[in-house]
Amino acid sequence: MPSIRTVLCPPLLPLTPVTDAIVVIIDILRATSAICTGLHHGVEAIIPVASIEDALAYRGSGHLLAGERNAQALEGFDFGNSPFAFMADEVVGQSIVFTTTNGTQALEQARKAGAEQIVCGAFVNLTALAAYLATQERDVVMFCAGWRDAFNLEDTLFAGALAEALAQTHKSHTIEDDATLAAMRLYDHGRTDLFEYIKASSHFTRLARQGIEEDIRYCLTPDSGKAIPILQGDALVALAA
Amino acid sequence: MPSIRTVLCPPLLPLTPVTDAIVVIIDILRATSAICTGLHHGVEAIIPVASIEDALAYRGSGHLLAGERNAQALEGFDFGNSPFAFMADEVVGQSIVFTTTNGTQALEQARKAGAEQIVCGAFVNLTALAAYLATQERDVVMFCAGWRDAFNLEDTLFAGALAEALAQTHKSHTIEDDATLAAMRLYDHGRTDLFEYIKASSHFTRLARQGIEEDIRYCLTPDSGKAIPILQGDALVALAA
Repeated sequence: MPSIRTVLCPPLLPLTPVTDAIVVIIDILRATSAICTGLHHGVEAIIPVASIEDALAYRGSGHLLAGERNAQALEGFDFGNSPFAFMADEVVGQSIVFTTTNGTQALEQARKAGAEQIVCGAFVNLTALAAYLATQERDVVMFCAGWRDAFNLEDTLFAGALAEALAQTHKSHTIEDDATLAAMRLYDHGRTDLFEYIKASSHFTRLARQGIEEDIRYCLTPDSGKAIPILQGDALVALAA
Repeated sequence: MPSIRTVLCPPLLPLTPVTDAIVVIIDILRATSAICTGLHHGVEAIIPVASIEDALAYRGSGHLLAGERNAQALEGFDFGNSPFAFMADEVVGQSIVFTTTNGTQALEQARKAGAEQIVCGAFVNLTALAAYLATQERDVVMFCAGWRDAFNLEDTLFAGALAEALAQTHKSHTIEDDATLAAMRLYDHGRTDLFEYIKASSHFTRLARQGIEEDIRYCLTPDSGKAIPILQGDALVALAA
């Protein structure tokens, strides 16, 4: 049976082999929640880029520009990383170039590490993603983007939810490390009210100060969409159903 | 109020400033449990060394040699890292040179990072350690030694127990990161039976295979001793009461 492992934050990626694994990028507040939302609502492709400069190079080429740094909007960009921007009418059929503090950096790091396949995970696509992974007969590495290289609670909670779905619901994967076990137990501990559970966390405080509680509630709500973003070439596109 | 932070495993130490902090080295199974036990039972000093060669260099100099690699005893050493060896009659008043897979490496790493003060923590000295730290008016960094650089459950559970004692019982420190928050919640989730709680963990499996369940039970039982090991020069000695 294939295994499931958790990388709790970016500096720990080198400890985990990924070349034969499907790597699930996790940045719940808010990059991967926004990416899953966009592809579910008809965005054609999302091009993740690590730097602001890389994003601005696409200006005037027919792409929309989205991104943030430290949860702040960026000058010259069409919108930030609120998932609500990724379900607006004007993004349907469009291609979006997207850069964020943590999520797109993690994606680039997984690519450089030679991941066999890279997908995005978030509560908004939890059930669909688990169903897909359960059929792949591949090791799964859940890669939490964290906050500025450090551990964060919300990404870990999602890793726990996905691990539970694979190891217990689908019984398709075995748990191979203590990080996955801890993530599952944290999720089990907090599952009845994830919003309350992360309220004391550092990221919550940082974001709530900016009045985006509605974003946070959306990002913690499972299964509003079904798209599974998969990296093909330079772009994330919805996996064909 | 000073802060408390948690370094979940060694590769994450560089993210956390330690030059003005008291660093608590945590290696529950079994290095710091053994060190706390030894100093409580009358060992005069424990000299942590990172390599087997460094330890063997002390042979014939009047020191006892203790250590393990991958939970296995070492040739030419007087004993391994079972805490029961550290409470035997023959160690009273002795100096022990000690090398382990994870714990003594973490100690060396904290020293090189310039920690203001280095102490050892384990369930066996939990209450005494918390009482000491609560009076120091210093930031505290809990440094989990992990297993071969990776996250492990038992070290994190102890970090959670110590954080709870400082933030809630003594109200002497504020929690500054999600790692500490997660550790406290895991401890809260598992506190009624820590032995059962870590039974599924990777380290437990590895050690139980070697028939040291009695060691594990001892290492998870709070407050069998009161010594607080503090690094002075090259040696860990009991902090004067």
